[in-house]
Amino acid sequence: MPNWLLPEFIADVLPAEARKMEEIRRKVLDAFRSYGYELVVPPMLEYLESLLTGVGQDTEIYTFKLIDQLSGRTMGIRADMTTQVARIDAHLLNRNAVTRLCYAGSILHTRPSGLQGTREPLQIGAEIFGYPGIEADAEIQDLALTSLKAANITGVCLDLSHVGVLKSLIAADPLAQIFEAQLFDLLETKDMPGLTELTKGFHEDTRNALLALPDMYGDINVLKEARKVLPENGGIEKALNELEFLAGQADCGRVTIDLADMHGYHYHSGVMFAAYVPGLPNALARGGRYDHVAEAFGRSRPATGFSMDLRELARLLPAPEKRRAILAPWNNDEKCRQAIRELRKSGELVVFELPGAKSEHDEFVCDRELVCETENGNWNVKTVSKDE
Amino acid sequence: MPNWLLPEFIADVLPAEARKMEEIRRKVLDAFRSYGYELVVPPMLEYLESLLTGVGQDTEIYTFKLIDQLSGRTMGIRADMTTQVARIDAHLLNRNAVTRLCYAGSILHTRPSGLQGTREPLQIGAEIFGYPGIEADAEIQDLALTSLKAANITGVCLDLSHVGVLKSLIAADPLAQIFEAQLFDLLETKDMPGLTELTKGFHEDTRNALLALPDMYGDINVLKEARKVLPENGGIEKALNELEFLAGQADCGRVTIDLADMHGYHYHSGVMFAAYVPGLPNALARGGRYDHVAEAFGRSRPATGFSMDLRELARLLPAPEKRRAILAPWNNDEKCRQAIRELRKSGELVVFELPGAKSEHDEFVCDRELVCETENGNWNVKTVSKDE
Repeated sequence: MPNWLLPEFIADVLPAEARKMEEIRRKVLDAFRSYGYELVVPPMLEYLESLLTGVGQDTEIYTFKLIDQLSGRTMGIRADMTTQVARIDAHLLNRNAVTRLCYAGSILHTRPSGLQGTREPLQIGAEIFGYPGIEADAEIQDLALTSLKAANITGVCLDLSHVGVLKSLIAADPLAQIFEAQLFDLLETKDMPGLTELTKGFHEDTRNALLALPDMYGDINVLKEARKVLPENGGIEKALNELEFLAGQADCGRVTIDLADMHGYHYHSGVMFAAYVPGLPNALARGGRYDHVAEAFGRSRPATGFSMDLRELARLLPAPEKRRAILAPWNNDEKCRQAIRELRKSGELVVFELPGAKSEHDEFVCDRELVCETENGNWNVKTVSKDE
Repeated sequence: MPNWLLPEFIADVLPAEARKMEEIRRKVLDAFRSYGYELVVPPMLEYLESLLTGVGQDTEIYTFKLIDQLSGRTMGIRADMTTQVARIDAHLLNRNAVTRLCYAGSILHTRPSGLQGTREPLQIGAEIFGYPGIEADAEIQDLALTSLKAANITGVCLDLSHVGVLKSLIAADPLAQIFEAQLFDLLETKDMPGLTELTKGFHEDTRNALLALPDMYGDINVLKEARKVLPENGGIEKALNELEFLAGQADCGRVTIDLADMHGYHYHSGVMFAAYVPGLPNALARGGRYDHVAEAFGRSRPATGFSMDLRELARLLPAPEKRRAILAPWNNDEKCRQAIRELRKSGELVVFELPGAKSEHDEFVCDRELVCETENGNWNVKTVSKDE
């Protein structure tokens, strides 16, 4: 096997695509900053226990393991940065006030995931710690939509759901509590025969509600329907109110509600959202509330946040227009060097043509060149004629 | 052991420092781009053979190894990005013309290295492929100095050396060839008694030259001295001429020459340079020519380049001044939302004050607030009085 082949689902990013990713990265980080989010950089690896704390078994199978030669302990390469940022909030910053943090970096998965089936997503995201109220979720939702706009992604549809609906239903029925795991599996696969069978002995209200849930997706009217069909229950009421509030706050093309969305059910503790664009099955951004994560670090802090994969965003966008550049012949004339320095300082891209060689590039096109005027030895920029 | 503790020589980067790193990253990448370098993003992991191709055993001990669950083969986490970029040049871009590439990303080492003893340097660098002449080395040297200036590092001293001196000396003496590895070790540790002993049977010219080398460091006059003391030899002559040329091209505080610098001797094939600042023993930037690396990928391309660690650069610089921000009370007034959107679009940083809570931040300071005028309901920015 030739030694320049890469492992499956691992890829290089070549110039035009890399430039696109870099531009989106900057725009999104700038959007985060304009909202007051502070940047942190967690490490690529940690002891395995820290990485897997509070995230459930879903993450473990995706996490690469290594032996630390210095301590002999098992380390993991981060498969997700959310827990790391929660750890930083809980133990490094150690603030009591509301804290807004953001991050951008590679994560590695043992198996492919996401739209392109990559094993190395470039995760970028933002989190609010220390605020339990729905206003923080609304801010995160707004920031997610603003970030997608900043990246020039249009026609975004926001899909809202809430773990509080199912959790409250189950909490109200002792029999349902026993079968929580099975209920989750049946709802996740929308297995109606299985659900009909399992809920036979449940309280009638619970049963009707559970059987109605898989159909409760669509536009905002789903919430009206839910208020009619679902039993009276403080937790359900709260969840539906929060969803109504967030749907009203969303500044995007379309909002949908899905009360039986099980994605992230084990990890989240309140509202969850996902942003889609037409024609793509996978979400571009995912977020929601996950209040319990920092508990495992010994310090409970409410938390809500979202993240995206920069590689997926970049794939959706057209190649950026090639930047215009100036070609300069290699020489040792201080006047020429000075002219080049000034052009670069003014924002121009100036490529040195090395003696006797041509250069090649994909990101930009040299449509001008630096030419020495024979009468005074000054260097000026001239347009390259098309037929050259 | 508490689960928020990190492995040794692995650290989080907190807001003020992370912001500094991000700013340097952008400035340096912008400098690379202004010279016509195209960005590439190689993966964090590859099959071990690809990663270790052409770099010698120095890198192997620093490389974390993993089993690929998909193929069963051994993968490595990159400990250096130079080989990866050479592979991209040789096999993905596959150009014959001069190609300029740059990169920025985390690398991982099994053992600490560098100024701060980190195991996760943030490597940033640039390479020219396809040009064997010294003009390419001069451009890389200039780009390294420009990058340090762009990062606000001042008082830089450039130290030049050249593997051609020792290699040509050894190539000219059959006995020296047999003892190349020992000569390297003795010169690296500047072990004069050992060197005196080992060179006893060598040709007198070779011996005198080898014994003189360890003292050949200092300012540009070292080259004059070398021309007197070192034997006549085409390879040595060429190396000294190249060093003289590069010293003349360097636009920095001070240039030194070190003819017995063994750092990177196995990896490099021509000129080598290192940039220092007063008071710090480790180099901030290292570079040089390494023409043989791509050979192992089946396609020989001349190559010269340099790299730096963004974490080390950031450590040298003072904390950036805190940015000024505007505090806005949380509310649902569309006029207020509009005012905030416009302020953010104009480049202002606006933090929402969530109901009943205070927020805390290190990167910026809220010296103004958004206030609603009671008479007309408009929102205006007011200065926060100092004693509040």
